[in-house]
Amino acid sequence: MNQGLFITLEGGEGAGKSTAIRLLQQQLEELGQSVVVTREPGGIHIAERIREVILDKEHTAMDARTEALLYAAARRQHLVEKVKPALETGSIVLCDRFVDSSLAYQGYARGLGVDAVWEINRFAIHDLMPDLTFWLDIDPEAGLARIAANAEREINRLDQEGFSFHEQVRAGYQLLAEKYPERIVRIDASAEPQAIATQMLDILRVRTRN
Amino acid sequence: MNQGLFITLEGGEGAGKSTAIRLLQQQLEELGQSVVVTREPGGIHIAERIREVILDKEHTAMDARTEALLYAAARRQHLVEKVKPALETGSIVLCDRFVDSSLAYQGYARGLGVDAVWEINRFAIHDLMPDLTFWLDIDPEAGLARIAANAEREINRLDQEGFSFHEQVRAGYQLLAEKYPERIVRIDASAEPQAIATQMLDILRVRTRN
Repeated sequence: MNQGLFITLEGGEGAGKSTAIRLLQQQLEELGQSVVVTREPGGIHIAERIREVILDKEHTAMDARTEALLYAAARRQHLVEKVKPALETGSIVLCDRFVDSSLAYQGYARGLGVDAVWEINRFAIHDLMPDLTFWLDIDPEAGLARIAANAEREINRLDQEGFSFHEQVRAGYQLLAEKYPERIVRIDASAEPQAIATQMLDILRVRTRN
Repeated sequence: MNQGLFITLEGGEGAGKSTAIRLLQQQLEELGQSVVVTREPGGIHIAERIREVILDKEHTAMDARTEALLYAAARRQHLVEKVKPALETGSIVLCDRFVDSSLAYQGYARGLGVDAVWEINRFAIHDLMPDLTFWLDIDPEAGLARIAANAEREINRLDQEGFSFHEQVRAGYQLLAEKYPERIVRIDASAEPQAIATQMLDILRVRTRN
């Protein structure tokens, strides 16, 4: 049994996950909670090594299934070495992106199939599923506009995908939220950051009351 | 549809796979067949890079599931870049170890579960399952004695496992042969190498008549 709480944040580009996590962390810490914020590969050596293989620009021949298996492998190692120890000491772990990103981006938007990508991730996650997942839902047009307006945020490969790709990602998240209503909570990401963090905190309190 | 034939050879330590493959290749080539002999990672750059991560001696913290996912990832890339192109040109591909090694060693003998390891490998293999698999079955005691007598063969990490581990591997292969009787053919690996190759060739001829 985990002593702590494993919370993941999900959403398309420009949804404001980083800000939301930072604010939620602050609010939780003000309540005296021990909070660990992370995102894969999270400084875990083996996971970083795997990520290097994925991101190597010379690996143009990489098959989509190879890539999905490598993401699952890095996920496993990050879970075992970073998330699990933190949960065992009773911390609240806030993880920026997790399994639902693979399902929405690779399974749904890239067309590998949500069920197929879930199979390998179920193996990777084993007994460490998130207790709760916040899906920061933003209209792709608004999300991409935010990124364009944010000079600090570097444009990455995904930001440059066609608009329809981002619509597909959103549809993928929508599907997942309907499939796992007990775990995934949709948050309107067009709200003010502080209001979003407060909403997440309220939901956390209700969910963890018992 | 594959034009060629995808054949895998499996078995415990000291079963004589390398010799059997070399002899079978000779016999097939004498019949005018185009034959490609390979084994993972097979010189495929991305698969080799993944194998390096698996075998890095500093990676003592590697979780068994991470390792299984990495093997599946390397398998996928080797399949796509090496096996598939050979099959498409009509060659017979002889592959030294494939999915059944993961199932017997990691799934069964290491206790990850045959079904669980199959799930991730099913994703990796997708539509490229072997047409036929020869299981070179040897009594572990005889197999290990062969290795000890063979000065050319370097002792590896698996050879040094306890005897019961090799018994478990054999039991795993037995289970797989019962589960997939249409695909896996058991060969008595205590026979003479030339006789083993001829037996495999005969089975190949019968199976590929139509």
